[in-house]
Amino acid sequence: MQTRIPYGNYLLKTAQKAPLVHCITNFVTVNDCANIILACGARPVMAHQAGEAEDITEGSQALLLNMGTVSQVESMLLAGKRSNRLGHPVILDPVGVSGSRLRRETFRRLSEEIHPDVIRGNVSEIRYIATGHSDAAGVDVCGAEQITEENAGEIAAMAQALSVKMNCVIAVSGPVDIVAFGERAVLLRGGHPIMARVTGTGCMSAALMGAFLGASPENRFEAAAAAAGMMKVCGTLAYEKTAKAKGGTMTFRLHLIDTASLLTPEKLEEQVREEVLS
Amino acid sequence: MQTRIPYGNYLLKTAQKAPLVHCITNFVTVNDCANIILACGARPVMAHQAGEAEDITEGSQALLLNMGTVSQVESMLLAGKRSNRLGHPVILDPVGVSGSRLRRETFRRLSEEIHPDVIRGNVSEIRYIATGHSDAAGVDVCGAEQITEENAGEIAAMAQALSVKMNCVIAVSGPVDIVAFGERAVLLRGGHPIMARVTGTGCMSAALMGAFLGASPENRFEAAAAAAGMMKVCGTLAYEKTAKAKGGTMTFRLHLIDTASLLTPEKLEEQVREEVLS
Amino acid sequence: MQTRIPYGNYLLKTAQKAPLVHCITNFVTVNDCANIILACGARPVMAHQAGEAEDITEGSQALLLNMGTVSQVESMLLAGKRSNRLGHPVILDPVGVSGSRLRRETFRRLSEEIHPDVIRGNVSEIRYIATGHSDAAGVDVCGAEQITEENAGEIAAMAQALSVKMNCVIAVSGPVDIVAFGERAVLLRGGHPIMARVTGTGCMSAALMGAFLGASPENRFEAAAAAAGMMKVCGTLAYEKTAKAKGGTMTFRLHLIDTASLLTPEKLEEQVREEVLS
Repeated sequence: MQTRIPYGNYLLKTAQKAPLVHCITNFVTVNDCANIILACGARPVMAHQAGEAEDITEGSQALLLNMGTVSQVESMLLAGKRSNRLGHPVILDPVGVSGSRLRRETFRRLSEEIHPDVIRGNVSEIRYIATGHSDAAGVDVCGAEQITEENAGEIAAMAQALSVKMNCVIAVSGPVDIVAFGERAVLLRGGHPIMARVTGTGCMSAALMGAFLGASPENRFEAAAAAAGMMKVCGTLAYEKTAKAKGGTMTFRLHLIDTASLLTPEKLEEQVREEVLS
Repeated sequence: MQTRIPYGNYLLKTAQKAPLVHCITNFVTVNDCANIILACGARPVMAHQAGEAEDITEGSQALLLNMGTVSQVESMLLAGKRSNRLGHPVILDPVGVSGSRLRRETFRRLSEEIHPDVIRGNVSEIRYIATGHSDAAGVDVCGAEQITEENAGEIAAMAQALSVKMNCVIAVSGPVDIVAFGERAVLLRGGHPIMARVTGTGCMSAALMGAFLGASPENRFEAAAAAAGMMKVCGTLAYEKTAKAKGGTMTFRLHLIDTASLLTPEKLEEQVREEVLS
Repeated sequence: MQTRIPYGNYLLKTAQKAPLVHCITNFVTVNDCANIILACGARPVMAHQAGEAEDITEGSQALLLNMGTVSQVESMLLAGKRSNRLGHPVILDPVGVSGSRLRRETFRRLSEEIHPDVIRGNVSEIRYIATGHSDAAGVDVCGAEQITEENAGEIAAMAQALSVKMNCVIAVSGPVDIVAFGERAVLLRGGHPIMARVTGTGCMSAALMGAFLGASPENRFEAAAAAAGMMKVCGTLAYEKTAKAKGGTMTFRLHLIDTASLLTPEKLEEQVREEVLS
């Protein structure tokens, strides 16, 4: 059994080192991703052209590849291979991977040619990667299978097995989050169901992982778990503020990123609800 | 003379069925469109690649084609034809259709190869489609011709004639909205002039129509009118909150989507200001 | 020594003339740029397709070219040349110009084939253009060299020399702003460091310049300075509201555009903190 991850320290290091995070991501939530990276003290570079993918990666400390709009695959390959050579952490967010043949083939190609350090997805996406099967319709998460207290054990086992097979951190987002790497697995509680009613909360979670791993590449499992924990805490606190203001989904999104920009390492440390699974 | 449209029921069905809405739209307001679809209880899939257009449409319940940045026309054609074959509702938003040769030709091609179930635009766009003439400069709406209480009768007649000619619902947005389908036409009051000072309110109205028609394909006229009515109500209520907070255009946009996410069927029913024109 | 620029008058004219601003810009902050242009009373047209670039420019009063995602360079060239021929003001925002070979070459090509009326950048970008050297990592501004009270004199001299060489207004954004055109240079104080923690504040400053020059092409230096002054004032006032609400970065962004939408010419006039340098 492991000791508790020092969540606050990972946020502190991120703010101190202010790593540059190269993001090749979808155009739906790109602005939110840039802003949450800034919010935690890191610096985003949203650069998706193949002609500069390697240059930008070279000057960055981490790489985020988000398949949301399945665009810029050549840029992802160039930047990913270069990051692998440089030893920069690579976070892969296989959005809607089972939703179309194009997405399945794009993921296959990315995972064959690039070694991701973290794969972050919802349970449908991770299950598809682990088993080749999924219950998800399209690139959708709502209403599809979710991780809950009930199935968390089974999903943690799946994530751990996939982690060993792919030699990378597997992060599964949902009503509870699981982050697994080989022997280790943590379950993170918090957040709020309203997170599924705002576009981009999954993308932002992966973007935070880019920031945290950029600052702490020496422990990719803990850095990824710290980022996931931070999203949970921000979700919980943002919902409290939203409820108090009788606000809706956009008030929640505002408070989500706001909270990330105001969160201290101490508050993060105090608020994370971690359960060490193994 | 028809009886009042059951506005609240259409929202209720949308939230209950949570239809998947495939959106091929511009990158300026794509995030707002995704969030307003989520706000009313439906689920957005912003997928614009030609290589997956048909797959995604196949798994969805409605298709939104927005010409805002005149991109992804091949994807629109593929998804539109497939939607037509499947009987899925297709909403076409011909943004700035008269503003450039490219837009005029793109619209001509889309309307020749795809049968839209709803065309939603401002009066300049609809007039161009109906007559081949427009007073609009560029893709702009502000300052161009508007529907007002004074010209509503003339514009309703134009919309009804166009509706018969194209066999689809015609929705005209402005200070008052008109939704017409053959014999039927309703005028919707509400909203606020500040809506023209925020980008994306027209796009969001069309996105809501995608959600409502995805849930209620059996009555496309009423579903489109219910979505237009919901935008009007959200605009009115959001402006009240904005004025109370002495806020500006971004406070208004936040409250617009917030209100959509909080609106109950009962409140919608109570607030819609409909006048049955025929 | 020049008299004070009539800041308020430039805002008044912008709101009265409501110029159409053709923007070819990055997809990260495109929505913010459109909304700040609307906020000051002008009208945005975000049209980036080469097939309509010239048509749209023809119907507009100013052109904004933002290199943020180094996309649509052919469209920029077509629109820029046409704007030059028409005598429309062209604002060039060379985002991250030194960050990759692609960006350096794109800037070289744009500046060889188009005459910009204003180049707006942070000090690293402007220094690169002036000298071919830069200390910036990637397309990043935070942490790189900044203009401060201490180095303002040196940077103003550099901007003035570059202005003469390129025969255009040079606007340098940072903790203080400098706007230079040949003999004239002003320093603008205000804003707040939180502006660097939100993506898009530089892009929005250039977008405002598009609006102001579109309305006042007869005095491009003063119009650019007035737009820069307006961003500073909005930044200061928005931070006050954010601090009062104990908000974070997203509350600040909301108030930034909100403030622009509510600012009167009188308030702008009263709040601008200008120092005439020469």
